[in-house]
Amino acid sequence: MTNTLRLIPLGGLGEIGKNMLLFEFGRDIIVVDAGIMFPEHDMWGIDVVIPDFGYLRDKADRVRGIVITHGHEDHVGALPYLLGDVLPIATPIYATPLAAGLIEAKLSEFPALGKPTIRRFKAGEGFRVGAFEVEFLAITHSIPDGVGLAIRTSVGTVIHTGDFKFDYTPVRGGGPGFSRLGQLGAQGVLALLSDSTGAERAGYTPSEALIEPAFDTIFREATGRIIVATFASLLSRVQQVIDAAQRHNRVVALAGYSMLKTTEIARQLGHLQVPSGALVELNEALHLPDDRVAIVTTGSQGQPEAALARMAEGTHRQIEVKPGDTIVLSSTPIPGNEEEVARVINKLFARGANVIYPPLANVHVSGHASQEEQKLMLALTRPRFFVPVHGELRHLHAHGRLARQMGVAAENIFILENGAVLELTRDSAQVVERTPSGNIFVDGSGVGDIGPAVMREREVLARDGFVLAVVPVSPATGEVSGKPELVSRGLVYLPESGDLMERAAERAWSVLRVAGKTKRQAIIERTQEALSRFFFEETKRKPMVVVVVTEG
Amino acid sequence: MTNTLRLIPLGGLGEIGKNMLLFEFGRDIIVVDAGIMFPEHDMWGIDVVIPDFGYLRDKADRVRGIVITHGHEDHVGALPYLLGDVLPIATPIYATPLAAGLIEAKLSEFPALGKPTIRRFKAGEGFRVGAFEVEFLAITHSIPDGVGLAIRTSVGTVIHTGDFKFDYTPVRGGGPGFSRLGQLGAQGVLALLSDSTGAERAGYTPSEALIEPAFDTIFREATGRIIVATFASLLSRVQQVIDAAQRHNRVVALAGYSMLKTTEIARQLGHLQVPSGALVELNEALHLPDDRVAIVTTGSQGQPEAALARMAEGTHRQIEVKPGDTIVLSSTPIPGNEEEVARVINKLFARGANVIYPPLANVHVSGHASQEEQKLMLALTRPRFFVPVHGELRHLHAHGRLARQMGVAAENIFILENGAVLELTRDSAQVVERTPSGNIFVDGSGVGDIGPAVMREREVLARDGFVLAVVPVSPATGEVSGKPELVSRGLVYLPESGDLMERAAERAWSVLRVAGKTKRQAIIERTQEALSRFFFEETKRKPMVVVVVTEG
Repeated sequence: MTNTLRLIPLGGLGEIGKNMLLFEFGRDIIVVDAGIMFPEHDMWGIDVVIPDFGYLRDKADRVRGIVITHGHEDHVGALPYLLGDVLPIATPIYATPLAAGLIEAKLSEFPALGKPTIRRFKAGEGFRVGAFEVEFLAITHSIPDGVGLAIRTSVGTVIHTGDFKFDYTPVRGGGPGFSRLGQLGAQGVLALLSDSTGAERAGYTPSEALIEPAFDTIFREATGRIIVATFASLLSRVQQVIDAAQRHNRVVALAGYSMLKTTEIARQLGHLQVPSGALVELNEALHLPDDRVAIVTTGSQGQPEAALARMAEGTHRQIEVKPGDTIVLSSTPIPGNEEEVARVINKLFARGANVIYPPLANVHVSGHASQEEQKLMLALTRPRFFVPVHGELRHLHAHGRLARQMGVAAENIFILENGAVLELTRDSAQVVERTPSGNIFVDGSGVGDIGPAVMREREVLARDGFVLAVVPVSPATGEVSGKPELVSRGLVYLPESGDLMERAAERAWSVLRVAGKTKRQAIIERTQEALSRFFFEETKRKPMVVVVVTEG
Repeated sequence: MTNTLRLIPLGGLGEIGKNMLLFEFGRDIIVVDAGIMFPEHDMWGIDVVIPDFGYLRDKADRVRGIVITHGHEDHVGALPYLLGDVLPIATPIYATPLAAGLIEAKLSEFPALGKPTIRRFKAGEGFRVGAFEVEFLAITHSIPDGVGLAIRTSVGTVIHTGDFKFDYTPVRGGGPGFSRLGQLGAQGVLALLSDSTGAERAGYTPSEALIEPAFDTIFREATGRIIVATFASLLSRVQQVIDAAQRHNRVVALAGYSMLKTTEIARQLGHLQVPSGALVELNEALHLPDDRVAIVTTGSQGQPEAALARMAEGTHRQIEVKPGDTIVLSSTPIPGNEEEVARVINKLFARGANVIYPPLANVHVSGHASQEEQKLMLALTRPRFFVPVHGELRHLHAHGRLARQMGVAAENIFILENGAVLELTRDSAQVVERTPSGNIFVDGSGVGDIGPAVMREREVLARDGFVLAVVPVSPATGEVSGKPELVSRGLVYLPESGDLMERAAERAWSVLRVAGKTKRQAIIERTQEALSRFFFEETKRKPMVVVVVTEG
């Protein structure tokens, strides 16, 4: 019988996003979450980023199940790729009802995959997956029905917090299972894997209940329409808008595809309580008096394709923002989105709207634990080994510092990066090997075909465009037979560039005409060199120079 | 005699950056500041952005002078373009000694411009420029020797705060001129133009003095080298590092071109007090014991070309970051730079350094007033009209709300955008016209030649690259004479794309071969359409398709 448990993070360590963690015990493997990451600004043209599944490629027959902590994209978004590529669609997925509903809806957009096998459990329930006993632990987060995990094998109990905060007064539901966490801690926890997102933030993350008075103030003061933008998955916030609207005699309409889809699933599962008549169609709402309407919409992260950005641009098909509108951004920008969010806010102001956003009002709280909550998690569970997860290196290190303050020995804290294999026994932990991990880019229908080479090409093109030279070579003599024809894009504004391209062609020709019979590769290199130098001299820019040799 | 003063913002309103404001009275014009803005993420390949000088183009003979509030790039960086393009180099520049020194150094990099005429005045001094009486007002900011302006004409006094905070205990210098501001307020202020950058931040911006104990803690605890990254212009911070190093028995070395240049100017002007032996050359410092060294460097905004990013990447020529190093980011990310700063922090952690940055420690404070200071400025100056400046629309609106809370009538508050001409008399203010304004892009040696068309091309290229088709046409028959030759970059990784390009050429050829004798333009359009469709079907990507028709 084996006596080592291997933890293998394939995503989410050293980054915020694409969370995926393997538990391996003997021949049995379970996958915890399989998420996507949104691209950074210099991942040119990339739609989403997924984990490298390479470690699993020859071990699919050993995967006993996929265990999901909650339904956010950075935890479930890579399932269509994982199931489409490495694991059979029959691989059982263990999830809470809301996460299961969101996964079903997502996978239905990939009909070629077939129907998944989803097993639904609630917080507090346990089940066996291969060699693992798994228990769903009640926590609170910015989506309902999120759970932490207690995963038991013969080496001991590992607690994975999932994404969590400790909210004593959540909008709906019973709140975190403090006593169960304490009980597990008293029984002995081998290792804690805890959410590090908020590790740089002192104090406690406020309760969702903080939002209610802010909404009341806004609803009391607004004389026109109220438009609240938030995450479609932040169902408690949608509930709070519905509740505030009820108190202030307004109806609520929903705008944005994902908002409609998510709230529909949530209503069916009882995660959204909608009094009769409280919700109306958007078209109906737009015919009511402005001071009777509140609209909940997507796009609070400034995403250009989402409803709020289209309202800001004036391209939304149904909603035209106007003076008198009060627009609430009930969110804060995810790091990297600040510029886009600021742009949307500014454009809404330019349309005459009154725009309210944090920190001007308490209209958002984080879904992640701050330092004092992270300490409480450590204090309740009293782990022997500690692995901060879900964060960039900066967050993992900050979380590691907290653990040291809480008395965890430095050598028992493991700041891991993706691909590090941590082997745990009853009384030891060590990194034993590294397995491939990294960013797999999804671009259009291509998964993994875009790598550093193409990314560098896009970077050069983004910065200074390209110049293409078509160089005619006489098939008879092998000599360049005339001036190259030049085409450029993204380099200069051609209608106002005067004779620049003509002079560039002359320069290339002046080099090529004296070359005599020349090998094709040499023609290409000389043309590239002449043109690169010419354009740098003339413009101080460095376009990509591409040369095509033709017969003529 | 005229009795109207015109205020014409050409930059800095509706944005953070490229500050430039004209005062026009009769035939006399003065320019207040002429700054650059750093490009946003979707300003592909742009180096810097400058204001549109169009309004001044036919009025250069009426410009009596350029008045500079302080030496930051967003206030002086556009001077080489303004003086090189619109105004004669002889136009007098009025500045404090440090700003003057920085301007001289900057203009010396553009020797073709000739030698500028700079007139130096200190805070508290006044001078006449054409019809304007100008007084430099003492304020505090994140660069020494910054001033506000009192500008007097026969219609009244206008106060322009410059960039300011109210720091009662600055590291050096006498602090803001509260009593003079109060005196001006008591005498009557027609209009206040006040820095809006911090208008979303409640409370007071802490004093620079807050940094000292944080530095002391870091210097006490560090066992290896200390590397502090900050802005080269934040000379008080450099002073604080020098002072802390003195207290903790370390010498200081400077790294980074702009750090060396700025501190040299500041030392000559007495803005930096360096005890003998406190400062050593970087090469010398690197041969001393690690615990005797502190290095001050640039790159705290994550700029890839600056010293700190090169240390993080392992490409700095002199400094190799190693375990034991303590690295302090004594700054916060300017909005838009969060991703780059996070990346540098993470990479420094990956090299084993201990990285300290806000909010983990009090190692930075803002140079801009928060809401309570902005209220104090309003309370001291008691203006009749209020124009929030230096901010995005969101900041201007937030500042406008504060002014209303302070009792300024809503109709006396002007939220202006660049190009709005505000006409002031002794007892009225109104926007009378709009003049062209906007972003002029500097890219390499080109100023203003890159506009929306080229920007769109770069965007397409950045996202999906391009495909070029060279289509041979028989000069005899006018028919396409063979399969097009295809070249692509930034679209797919060619070595692993199989027969994709071959099939694309076949597809285009299948359309072209049946076309018979065809006009060149029609050949181009059909090829573009066939290839665009092919690549979207095959890859769900939308590369730019460029077609060149050759004879052959």
